[in-house]
Amino acid sequence: MDIFKNLKIVVFIYDRFTALDAIGPYEVFSRIPNAEVFFVALKPGIYSDGQTLSIEVKHSLNEIEKPDVIVIPGGFGIDSLLQNREILDWIRLTHNTTQFTASVCSGALLLAAAGLLKNIKATTHWNRVEQLKKYGVEVVNKRYVHDGKIITSAGVSAGIDMALYMISKLANEKLAQIIQLSMEYDPQPPFNSGSPEKAPKEIVEILKKVIK
Amino acid sequence: MDIFKNLKIVVFIYDRFTALDAIGPYEVFSRIPNAEVFFVALKPGIYSDGQTLSIEVKHSLNEIEKPDVIVIPGGFGIDSLLQNREILDWIRLTHNTTQFTASVCSGALLLAAAGLLKNIKATTHWNRVEQLKKYGVEVVNKRYVHDGKIITSAGVSAGIDMALYMISKLANEKLAQIIQLSMEYDPQPPFNSGSPEKAPKEIVEILKKVIK
Repeated sequence: MDIFKNLKIVVFIYDRFTALDAIGPYEVFSRIPNAEVFFVALKPGIYSDGQTLSIEVKHSLNEIEKPDVIVIPGGFGIDSLLQNREILDWIRLTHNTTQFTASVCSGALLLAAAGLLKNIKATTHWNRVEQLKKYGVEVVNKRYVHDGKIITSAGVSAGIDMALYMISKLANEKLAQIIQLSMEYDPQPPFNSGSPEKAPKEIVEILKKVIK
Repeated sequence: MDIFKNLKIVVFIYDRFTALDAIGPYEVFSRIPNAEVFFVALKPGIYSDGQTLSIEVKHSLNEIEKPDVIVIPGGFGIDSLLQNREILDWIRLTHNTTQFTASVCSGALLLAAAGLLKNIKATTHWNRVEQLKKYGVEVVNKRYVHDGKIITSAGVSAGIDMALYMISKLANEKLAQIIQLSMEYDPQPPFNSGSPEKAPKEIVEILKKVIK
């Protein structure tokens, strides 16, 4: 499967990223034969999710030239980056030559702040919809949304679905299926509470109070 | 939600662990109010998944006394640990006082090597079933299996389902549902290829050749 030789996939890391936002797609992409996945950050170093997870990032933003894919994970730290010129410039620059520019969860806000989602169909975590709309984004209530070469996904766990979909487009459905089987991605959540539409109303109300 | 005060959850890390095996349950557990999640390893330090991910582990095995939950993630590195006396002793010791002793994917092999799965119903990654059976385990083809206070889960992504189930037992279904909604765990895989039974036969055959 040499078609992926030199395919460079970059996942952006920052303090207070959400662990699964980054590691879900990372797990999927790291199974592509011959592709290279890189974590990048403003500076090399150790970055924390704000809780227990600390990961080592070896590369600064511009060190990986012309990545084929960039992924912006969400997290509570995203809000403090929305006016960071260095990051916004990097997103705009890399987007010029990516095959796909992608986000998970509230990561979409950073794509929007960089001006990439103007009049674009996109999605985000259900609790970030109003915030994303302020950037002139046409927010769609879907698991992931593919518009042009931008692919955004819903909250946290949705990055796994998005990454598999992206592989079917970067390569073919067969490779996506092989990777899905290798990670036994046959989800069987014990409850039906994964979206505000499906969860019991009481659960939605409790959570809205907690995360405000 | 003070019921969780002082609940200690430990995730065991080692070189060549599978990223999502550890981070899937971690993401779920880290959302329990007032619980503490710890990564532990033989020694504090940086541990790699064998690819791009390197995580910082701050605690050695016995530093977290009497954890309420231990989770053993799978990974290609697991095979080199199956006769490691220090790790096996730690598993047996902590298991005496855990509320739940759990594994994801090939992590079940380490529980089995410690003697915890003898005549116990358990599961693992579909490709590790024969290996697990050699320990006298009654291997069950399910997403996760709860037998006594041992909960094992199938390959890689199954740890997310298992962790949500475990929270419903440690606490109640309501908290599990709140956490599921907070991480928007409403999985919609783009393909139906997550298990050997569901995947196209051709896909299963290709993958079996690759991972042997």
